[in-house]
Amino acid sequence: MAQLTEKARQRLSDPNLGFLATIMKDGSPQVSPIWVDVDGDHIVFNTAKGRTKERNMRRDPRVAISIADKDDPYTKVDIRGRVVDWVEGDEADAHIDKLAQKYMGKEKYPGHRQGVERVIVKIEPETISERG
Amino acid sequence: MAQLTEKARQRLSDPNLGFLATIMKDGSPQVSPIWVDVDGDHIVFNTAKGRTKERNMRRDPRVAISIADKDDPYTKVDIRGRVVDWVEGDEADAHIDKLAQKYMGKEKYPGHRQGVERVIVKIEPETISERG
Repeated sequence: MAQLTEKARQRLSDPNLGFLATIMKDGSPQVSPIWVDVDGDHIVFNTAKGRTKERNMRRDPRVAISIADKDDPYTKVDIRGRVVDWVEGDEADAHIDKLAQKYMGKEKYPGHRQGVERVIVKIEPETISERG
Repeated sequence: MAQLTEKARQRLSDPNLGFLATIMKDGSPQVSPIWVDVDGDHIVFNTAKGRTKERNMRRDPRVAISIADKDDPYTKVDIRGRVVDWVEGDEADAHIDKLAQKYMGKEKYPGHRQGVERVIVKIEPETISERG
């Protein structure tokens, strides 16, 4: 397990978009933007059950995340790691509201939908590469 | 081969960062930011020989690229595809200068280094997913 540097921690704490890469069933890559958060030495984010990325990570826990600073996109942190925990239910619903506050300044996530089950994904970093 | 939509073409033409996912030798994902460009129906970008992403794409041409609009990060286009061509030499050097104009407003790429060989990578899109 790699230790998050102060810079990496700052980029994860600021409302910067992360870009998460996962592995499709055929071994090819998939990448999409995520809201990120830091929890101790782990990176956490929130997705919904059944999404491509969620199905991919359930099959293969290896992921990569790249985060550029929103005000200075030529600084960045690239992380490789793996999923070590999943949290569902009320805690996951509260967590997406927390992320909506961080990223949208809204008290409640406006995208809650009946039948959409949220899930917190916890990532253990294995390599961290920084620029800027 | 998927046809680039007008929106996808616009996001690639504007100076938005792309995030490129490639596959490591062990089958795990890697992701890092890139400057992107569009060439007809292909996505093109520029890297240097020997970089992790370049070695990965030489081994496995399957890639994914996600682009969020710099002024509205909750709109995005996610593309999956494969490398179909490589261009090296003077053309690749001229291309990184063109990207430096697009992204930095500089006539010459300030990162040219002796011994660093630039290479244009051409991607054929296979699936395109948009939001916003």
